[in-house]
Order: sequence, then structure tokens, then C-alpha cells
Amino acid sequence: MTAPEQLSVAIVGGSGYAGGEFLRLALNHPHLNVTQVTSERNANTPVSLVHPNLRGRTTLKFRKVADLEPADIVVLALPHGSAAKRIGEFTAKGRIVVDLSADFRLKDPAVYRATYGEDHPAPEQLAEWVYGNPELHREELVGATRIACAGCFATSVILALYPLLKLGVLLPKDITATGLVGSSAAGASASDSSHHPERAGSLRVYKPVGHRHTAEARQELPGNFPLHLTAISTPRVRGILTTVQAWVPDGWSDKDVWSAYREVYGQEPFIRIVKVAKGIHRYPDPMLLDGTNYCDLGFEMDPDTGRVVLMSAIDNLVKGTAGHAIQSLNISQGWAETTGLEFAGLHPA
Amino acid sequence: MTAPEQLSVAIVGGSGYAGGEFLRLALNHPHLNVTQVTSERNANTPVSLVHPNLRGRTTLKFRKVADLEPADIVVLALPHGSAAKRIGEFTAKGRIVVDLSADFRLKDPAVYRATYGEDHPAPEQLAEWVYGNPELHREELVGATRIACAGCFATSVILALYPLLKLGVLLPKDITATGLVGSSAAGASASDSSHHPERAGSLRVYKPVGHRHTAEARQELPGNFPLHLTAISTPRVRGILTTVQAWVPDGWSDKDVWSAYREVYGQEPFIRIVKVAKGIHRYPDPMLLDGTNYCDLGFEMDPDTGRVVLMSAIDNLVKGTAGHAIQSLNISQGWAETTGLEFAGLHPA
Amino acid sequence: MTAPEQLSVAIVGGSGYAGGEFLRLALNHPHLNVTQVTSERNANTPVSLVHPNLRGRTTLKFRKVADLEPADIVVLALPHGSAAKRIGEFTAKGRIVVDLSADFRLKDPAVYRATYGEDHPAPEQLAEWVYGNPELHREELVGATRIACAGCFATSVILALYPLLKLGVLLPKDITATGLVGSSAAGASASDSSHHPERAGSLRVYKPVGHRHTAEARQELPGNFPLHLTAISTPRVRGILTTVQAWVPDGWSDKDVWSAYREVYGQEPFIRIVKVAKGIHRYPDPMLLDGTNYCDLGFEMDPDTGRVVLMSAIDNLVKGTAGHAIQSLNISQGWAETTGLEFAGLHPA
Amino acid sequence: MTAPEQLSVAIVGGSGYAGGEFLRLALNHPHLNVTQVTSERNANTPVSLVHPNLRGRTTLKFRKVADLEPADIVVLALPHGSAAKRIGEFTAKGRIVVDLSADFRLKDPAVYRATYGEDHPAPEQLAEWVYGNPELHREELVGATRIACAGCFATSVILALYPLLKLGVLLPKDITATGLVGSSAAGASASDSSHHPERAGSLRVYKPVGHRHTAEARQELPGNFPLHLTAISTPRVRGILTTVQAWVPDGWSDKDVWSAYREVYGQEPFIRIVKVAKGIHRYPDPMLLDGTNYCDLGFEMDPDTGRVVLMSAIDNLVKGTAGHAIQSLNISQGWAETTGLEFAGLHPA
Repeated sequence: MTAPEQLSVAIVGGSGYAGGEFLRLALNHPHLNVTQVTSERNANTPVSLVHPNLRGRTTLKFRKVADLEPADIVVLALPHGSAAKRIGEFTAKGRIVVDLSADFRLKDPAVYRATYGEDHPAPEQLAEWVYGNPELHREELVGATRIACAGCFATSVILALYPLLKLGVLLPKDITATGLVGSSAAGASASDSSHHPERAGSLRVYKPVGHRHTAEARQELPGNFPLHLTAISTPRVRGILTTVQAWVPDGWSDKDVWSAYREVYGQEPFIRIVKVAKGIHRYPDPMLLDGTNYCDLGFEMDPDTGRVVLMSAIDNLVKGTAGHAIQSLNISQGWAETTGLEFAGLHPA
Repeated sequence: MTAPEQLSVAIVGGSGYAGGEFLRLALNHPHLNVTQVTSERNANTPVSLVHPNLRGRTTLKFRKVADLEPADIVVLALPHGSAAKRIGEFTAKGRIVVDLSADFRLKDPAVYRATYGEDHPAPEQLAEWVYGNPELHREELVGATRIACAGCFATSVILALYPLLKLGVLLPKDITATGLVGSSAAGASASDSSHHPERAGSLRVYKPVGHRHTAEARQELPGNFPLHLTAISTPRVRGILTTVQAWVPDGWSDKDVWSAYREVYGQEPFIRIVKVAKGIHRYPDPMLLDGTNYCDLGFEMDPDTGRVVLMSAIDNLVKGTAGHAIQSLNISQGWAETTGLEFAGLHPA
Repeated sequence: MTAPEQLSVAIVGGSGYAGGEFLRLALNHPHLNVTQVTSERNANTPVSLVHPNLRGRTTLKFRKVADLEPADIVVLALPHGSAAKRIGEFTAKGRIVVDLSADFRLKDPAVYRATYGEDHPAPEQLAEWVYGNPELHREELVGATRIACAGCFATSVILALYPLLKLGVLLPKDITATGLVGSSAAGASASDSSHHPERAGSLRVYKPVGHRHTAEARQELPGNFPLHLTAISTPRVRGILTTVQAWVPDGWSDKDVWSAYREVYGQEPFIRIVKVAKGIHRYPDPMLLDGTNYCDLGFEMDPDTGRVVLMSAIDNLVKGTAGHAIQSLNISQGWAETTGLEFAGLHPA
Repeated sequence: MTAPEQLSVAIVGGSGYAGGEFLRLALNHPHLNVTQVTSERNANTPVSLVHPNLRGRTTLKFRKVADLEPADIVVLALPHGSAAKRIGEFTAKGRIVVDLSADFRLKDPAVYRATYGEDHPAPEQLAEWVYGNPELHREELVGATRIACAGCFATSVILALYPLLKLGVLLPKDITATGLVGSSAAGASASDSSHHPERAGSLRVYKPVGHRHTAEARQELPGNFPLHLTAISTPRVRGILTTVQAWVPDGWSDKDVWSAYREVYGQEPFIRIVKVAKGIHRYPDPMLLDGTNYCDLGFEMDPDTGRVVLMSAIDNLVKGTAGHAIQSLNISQGWAETTGLEFAGLHPA
């Protein structure tokens, strides 16, 4: 057989967890050829020193951004706020640019300002970017050359709520979403709050109100309703489990909710409805998703009150970041959507 | 100094975690003298074989219930449903009876039936029991001889909500409470869901709706409002962190919430308001409470929406079970309320 | 391109962790086609109920052994002692038989008896089986139709020690190997010792002396020397980290040890020497190996005493069981040795 | 009853884990009255901000060392090397000085130099200090005013080996000790290696050879024998489990080892021999010791080889640091030896 067509990839800011995860997935992707990874701090050292899972898998060394050469795809894995300020520099290097940060997710500069506390550095470019959520934007992603990867907590909230809101089912009451988040979501830099003795046994509410992903979720979800997010850190390293509290009309049953999910997500390759009557794995659990691109969704209704609890689980670094980006790239290039994302996950894990 | 007056204690069902925790605390209590501990399965073996933390602390051996002799205090640590069916047997053995199960918590037999799916075995006795929550029932506990220890998740919900509901502050909207619960809450018996490889990395929603403690919480909390509970198991062994989503009127601020907590809980020895502007320990965290009788409470307001997130953390086996019971006993007997409950908790832990 | 040749696979005893892991790897293997999985207890239920990571990956249902039909490869994942007693039944079903248990690892029936406390049920067959360790038995594995998968702790000990013993380097002193073992090594059945509250925080010596894998390690390792194993359970789910204490002659340096490893393992696709002077990942760590077939090896010398500490890390279910078996099968069939074993591992994890 | 006599205590360097643990224990000690705690970085902030378990337990604020006033007891909880350089400053402030660092543990300045790589700053004072291990130095501790608290890993090694070496039992072969150490042993400062995503799942050999506590252990243990230490970090926060590999003469049995431990440690209040034939808690396990001052000791013999595996478990911050210091102080002052150290430990935990 002939070798598959490959696009060259440069990862900018490749020493963090998001960049490292994109690298891991890309090294196993038949159509991607990572040729450059930047890290100012680690320039000239092998990437496998920072990402030790890649020992024996790549001989790439970090380089500085200043040494970046053109590539087919430039993947930006920089701290929030950094990509937008220098976006011209990066779009000049690659025909396709994928940003893993929050910089190009929000369409409305005023919402950006309200959310991030400063004016967007390149508001005129916002319209060019597609929000990198294949389940909501598959058609726009075809041929897209500017992909703004969706936020991890936002993704777990959006995918749980989208079907019921799209179909106009939910009552116009306050919707609350509580996310249990692993420590990798805070990034690769050590801090007092990530110090193992302070974190290993902790259940720590870190954003009871005011989570920035609220803006993304509101932008993407249909309808006009009050949405409230709360984020809690857990002792897991990866993963987000989100439980959403919402209300359906009188007479709705489990079966109706199931139908709604089926109708909207019927053919989605990375959405699984998990609602099992027996055994111990009855609902979504991030334990099963480390390294996978799945978003597992579940729900349970309270027949007495019309309350429905929606549940979603993802790996924040895969479906929440790098896998979502690869899936979006696959769509944009016309490759099979699951390419490079075949890992099934471990059990036990 | 003279030795303190001591009451003899018999613990019935002492091989589980609740009974073991009561034993641990009682062995360190100057007014309690544990003379009997029962376990059908472990009869004639030292209690320290089952509770290895008590090695060198006690030479007690388990006996069978059939061999129970009279004691001043009989503590029932039986599976739910077992105590009520044989309550006459136990009240005949001791002047004071403390039940750690759910059997005598609910006042209304109809609610009991709706919650536990069967008729209460001794409905005529329900009125004699005091709900063992000192913060709400301190005066009734004075001299009480029938104490029904409050449920662990219920306690975390009740103590978080009581001040704002007592003062009539909350808007009449749906209140949701999400509890993150440690594995010890499911008891000392091994099961598929407690098998370490299946549980260690899990974030598992186990009661999205229909949690039985809803009935307790509704009984104890003032006002008429929809209250919804969701319970999720976490990789911790002990501890519950509950976040409650509720709504306050326009114009309410953090300061007002703080005043409400202060007004209601001002002198409570085991309630701490945790809301710190700096550092990493800003809100309640069960990490700090293992082995202690504290209920740490916190809150945060969303100024844009009137949403308030209430947070409570407890050790499910102490403030959620055995410690709460000891505190209730201390009040009932006129002993200093903190007697035997002085442990401050560990940091780091 | 044409579809690759595929052999049909029947997994006997597929509800445990070893069988489940073989299934996970085989489903992703281009030359293997799993057509049957047995479980007496779970007959007629989907395998994904027991192995929830495989939801959406397979529609296979468990069947009973009595319903087993012929297959090219029969993989036995039964409790130790079960396969040998019925081996005729299984060899009648498949041309190639792979046993994941300990039944056919030991060559000498007397050693089997001393180790397992009973006579081997089929001693006449022992000579037909190849010990499934590709690094030591690659040539014998070519064309092999009876593969006895190596034990997990034994593998970690053997691979750490083999080069220095093969080259005759180690002094004839007592060698001790201490294995830190994850909870999945004890299997999928819940027990008192695997109950999460008893295991999550535990560091529990479970085999200070008398570990059965000592016999395997002695059989496979060259030379005549006293070898002593100690096994300790840790809070991890997967993984074994083994540290070996041994002694090299005067004048030996790190460089010499390194050369020995290189000489013996130079081209091994799944052996990585991990000895890094900087950063935090200086030695082998099972954290990086979940789901992978790597055995990472490291060492450090004490220049003052000639002591060398050898370190090995594996995933007990992959390189320690199912992955090792797949690697052996790949060799036996002439497929590329890494086929189906490409997963790189996660970081962070 | 009259209030007990109290000595005033100043803790120097009280923002770390060792100082915080001493503070926790001292606040509960009837003869100790902590009046000063220093921290340069946290001066003027409440100690409970840094040690949140002490909320509601103390109103002390940190002060700078420059503001230190005289106290009966000065406890030094400074980084290794800091106390000795300024020791005159501290001995001028208090009649009794307890050092929790390594600075005054070694008697021989040459050994200090070989171990710590620099000359001891106050070698003339070394002879004045008592090594703070009550089991070995109880008589010297009576009336002592300079107590050098023993190292944590050293303590676990020394207490395991002392009886068999004191009685001259062990064969003159290499003794190896492997310590599994919790993350709190590395202190309260965040670092790359303590970053939760890098540590939570890790089993990381951090000192395969060259551990500094080797010098302490050699100084304290009788006999002339080669002793080798290896230290491995585990996902626990507290605790050390040490397994020692040693050899006893032909004919020795479990019973003989037991007798040796009994003979030497018969009346020790904080030593427990843990060797149980049934159940899951057969050997020492640090899981049971968090917050306690126990050193649990166990052993198992290999009848075929004369190998004996000794096991010891401690809480590194209590019996390994602050509790050991309090116990030493209790002896020095003639207080009951267990005063302030009564906590039994939790189960489950």
C-alpha cells in the first residue's frame, strides 16, 4: 500500500499538557507528521524529557518560537491570552491554525471582555474561527482552516445539554452544572494548590461561581435560559464528570430523554449513551475514559418532580482538548473522523 | 482529682465502620466505659482484629447479641431496618439507647413507608426519639434517652441550609444539593462496587435522584421548598463535600449570608465558617476533617444572578455518625459538649 | 489494500482482568478476530457490561465453555490450576493455545509441586509449552503453538536481572527483589482486602516471603544464586515497580551496567532503559506505563559498596500478562512484533 | 483540680509540615503552651491560614525570628543546615532546645561532612545533644535540654533492626532497607516532583542509593555490618513503610524473632508488634497510623533460607518527627511519656 498523505505539524507551546497530548495523538496519526515542537524553556532538549511517555517514540527536540519554520498545520498550545496577541505571526507560518486556548472561542468581543477582563487583541479575526466542537459544528468544520478548540468543562456541559435544549424540551428554570475536575486541567506548572500533600486527599471547590466557560456554553447552547456552573477539583489527574440539574415537562419519561439523545447524537462516533440497569457501571465515569476521545452521556429522571440529572464524562485532555482538536482536523481535511483516536480506554484503570 | 463518673456502654453491631468509630471515640471519652461490643460473625475474637487502629487500646472481645448484659447506654450500629424490628429487646437492656441507623429518624410513618418501602416496625415509638442533630435540637437533647443519630449526607445538607431557611431568606426556587461521598459511607462489607480496581479512580454517580436522606432533610429544614439531592462517590475513604445551589433576594451580598450563618451558628462548637480570601484553603474541604467532629461551612455568591453556592464538609463517620452521636450524648448527660471530640484533624492529610 | 489475514480467537474465562485485557488488545489487532468469549456467570450478556471500556467496540456476548466452538487460537484466562486440569478439552478446540495462568510455566513437575502444593495435572505436556517471554525465548516462540504466558511479578524480576546474570556479572550474594504491586494483580473478584476503604490508603506487605513467582524467576534466570522476593500492595490499580538489590564486582561503574543492558536488550522493541540525569522522571515509573507493553528498566550504583539497585516497571496486565501474550503470538505467527501493542502510554496519568 | 504546670514554647520555622505538626500536638498537650511561632514569609498572618486544621484552635499569628522572645522551650523546625548556623541565637532564647532538622543528629563531624557535603557549623556543640529516639536513649533524655529529633526514614530503619542487632542475632551479611515514603516527607514547598499530576499515580525511586539517613542509622545501630537504604516515593501523603531484608542463623524461627522484639521493646508505649495470622491487617501498615505516634513492627521468616523480612510503619510527621520530639520532651521533663500523643489513629482511613 502507499503511504498516506501527510500534513506537517508544528506545535507551539509543546511543553504543557495540552501540547503534549496533541503530540501523543499526532505521533500515532497516519496523516499528521509532527516536525516541530516549541518550548522556550526547554529549547534543544528532547521532547521525551518533558513527555516521558514518548520515550522511544520520537527524537524531536524542542525549539524556540523564533526558530519556527512553515508547516501545513500550526497548533497553538499557549497559555490563554498569548495566542491572540501574536496571531499574525502564527497564521503566517501555516495554512491551517488550531488554537487549543480560549482565545478564539467567543464570537462576541464584548462577551470576551466581560469574561476575560480585557479587550480581545484581534477582534476582527473572531469571525474566521470555527468553534471546535464537531457535534455542533461538523459542517462548518469541513475545510476549516481556523479551529478554536472548545474548552474542557464547557464541552462536558454543552454535550450534556445540547439535545434537550436543541429540541426545546427543558423548562425555563435555572440549570446548574457541577463539574468534578482532575488536576491536569490546571496545567503542568507546579503551584501551592497542586502540591501533592495539599491535593491528594482534597475535594476543593475552586470556582463555585464565575467560571469562564459559562460564556462558551451560553454561546453554543440554543435557547435563552439561566445557566450556572460550579467547578470542584478532585483527586483524579484526568477527567471531568459533570452533573447537570434541569427540568423537563410533566409527563416526560426516561424514554423521552433517551429518544432526544438518540435523535441528536444518533451517529456520533464519540458519543456513547451510558444508562445501564445492572452492574456497577451504570452511568458515565471518567475512570473509563483516560486517553480516549469519548464523551459518555447519561441521565436519570426523578418521576416525582420532573427533575432530570444529566451526566457527562470526558478526558479533559482528549475530548476536552487535544482529541477534540484532532477530530475537528479530521473533519476539516476529509479524513475518517476517528483517525488517530481509536484508543478504547482501560478497565480497570 | 477523682475519677469522672462513667456510664457503661454496650455497642450492638460493632464490627462495622459506624460501630467501630463510636468505639474509637468512646474509648477516649472520660465519661464512657465501653464494656460490651457485639458481632455475630466475630464473636470471641478481639475487637482490635476488626478495628486494627485499636491495637493496644482495648482488650475487649466481641460477643453475640444473645449474650448482651444490661448497660447504661446501648448504642445500636446495625444495618438499616434491623434496630426497629427488635427495639424492645434493646431498650430492655439500657436506660439510654442511641441508634446510629435510619430507623428512628423520621417522625411520620407515612414518610418512612414512602422512603424505605415498608411499614415502620414500631411506629408508636417514633415520637420518643430525638433527632440527633445538636445544632437544631440541643434543647430536646437535654436529658434525652432515645437518640436517633442523623444521617451523614442529610447532616451535610441540613447544616448548610438551615440558617438561610430558618431566617426565611431563600427564594422559593428549586434547591439542589450535590454530595461527594467517600467509600466508607457504603459500609464495611466488600462488594463489586467497592472493589479497589473499580473504585480507586472512579467518580461514580450512585444516586442521581431518589436519595433517602431527602426525607430527613425535608423533615428537619424549615419552610416549604423543593429540595433535590444527588450523590456521587469519590476516591476518598472518608468525608462528604456537599455543594448546594440556592437563590437569595436581589441586593443580598456575601456579608448578609455571613451574618445569617453567624446569627444562627454563632456559638456552635463544631461549626466553622470557612471563607478565606487568600491561600489555597478558601472553602470547606473534607481533607482537613478526617477524624474530627467539625462541620465546615462556606458559601459564595454570584452577584449577577442571586445564586448562592453553599458548601459543607464533614467526616461522614464522625460528624456524620458517631461523633454527632457522642455530641448528642454529651448534651443529654450535661457533659461538656466537646468531650471526647477534641481531635483537631491533620494537615497535610 | 487487502484486508490482513486474520486468525479467529476464543477467550476462555473472559470476565476477569487478564481476559478482558487480552480482548481489548485483540480487538485492536489487525490479525486477530475474537469470535468467542466465555464466562459461566455472565453467559448471554454483552461483554461490554463487564468490560465497560469496550462499549461501542464490540457486540460480543459471553457464552459458556460448553458452547465453545473451534477457533484458530484459544486463549485461556482461567484461575490458576483450572487450565491444566482440562487442557485436553481446550487443545481440541484450537491449533494454538495461549495460557495466561501459571499452569504451564514451570518445566519441572517437582518444582510445580513444591510451588503450588499439588501434583501437576498434565506433567507430560509441560515440555510442549514455551515460556512466553519474548526477550528470553524469541527463537523458541517462532511457530510455537503452546504459549505459557509469564507471570507479572516474575517478568519484572526476570527482565531486570537477566542481562547481568546472563553476562555473569553479579557477585554470588543474596539478591532481593521488592515488588510494589497494583490492586488489579489480585483479580476482578471483590474481597475484604480489596475493599476500597481498606485498600485505598494501604501499603500492605502481602508476600514478604514465599512468593510463587520465585520459582519462575529461578527457572528462567541463568546462574545459581539465592533470589528472594517480597511483594507489597500499593494504592495503584495497575503496575508493578520492582527494585532489585544486587552486587557487582569492584571497579564496575554505571557505564558498565548500561553496556550490559544494551548488549542484551539492544534491539528489544519493548525494553527502554530509563536513567536520566535531570528532571523528575529519572527512573522507571509504572505511572507512565498503564496500557502499554513496555518494560522500563533503570539502575543506580552505589560506588562505595558495589551495590547496584536495578529497577523495572511494567503494567501487570499488559507486559505482565495480555500484552506479553500478544507479543509472543506476534512472534509465533511472524507478524510485526509490535502489532496491536502501539499504545504509548499517557502523561500525565 | 489545679491546672498543670506549663512550659512556654516558641516554634521557629512554623510554616512547614514539621513545625505545623509540632504545633498541632503541642496545642493539645497539657504541659506545653505555645506562645510564639515564626515564619518570615507569613509574619503577622494567623497560623491557621497556613495550617487550616487549626482553625478555631488557636489565635496565634506568625512572627519573624527577629521578634523572638525568650521561652522555656525553643523548637527549631528549619530547613536542614539552617539551625546549626545560628544555634547560638536560639540557645540564648530558651533553656531547652529541640531541633527537628538533621543538624545535630550525627556525633562525628567527619560523618556529618561526608553526609552533608560541608563542615558542621558548630561541631563543638554536637556532644551536648541527645539523639531524640526514646527507645534507644530514654535514660539520656531524662533532663536533657538539647534534643536532636531523629530522622523519619532513619527511625523506621532503626526501630526495625535494633532488637536483632542489639542481641547480636543477625548474620554478617548485607542488610537492605527499602522505604516507601509519603509525599509530606519532602516538605511543604511545591516543586515539579510534587505537582499532583506527576505524583498522584507515581511510584518513584528517588534515592536508590546514597540516602543521608544511612549515617544516622549506622550511628545508632549496634554492630558492624553493611547497611543499604533505598527510598521510593508513593502516592500516600503521610507514612513510611520500611521492609528490611536480613538473615538469621540456622534454626531460628518466628518465635525467636518475636522473643527478641519482646525482650527489647517489651514495655515501650509506642511500639506494637503486628503479626497476625488471620484477617487482612497482618503486618504493619502506615494506613492505620496517620496522626499517631506508633511505630508498628512486624516480621516474617523464610524457613528455607534464613531470610527474615522486618517491617516497620510510622507516620513520618509524628513518630518520624514531631511526635518523637514530644515523646522525648515528655521524658526529659518527667511527664507521662504518652502525654499529648494519645490519638489512636483512624480505621478506615
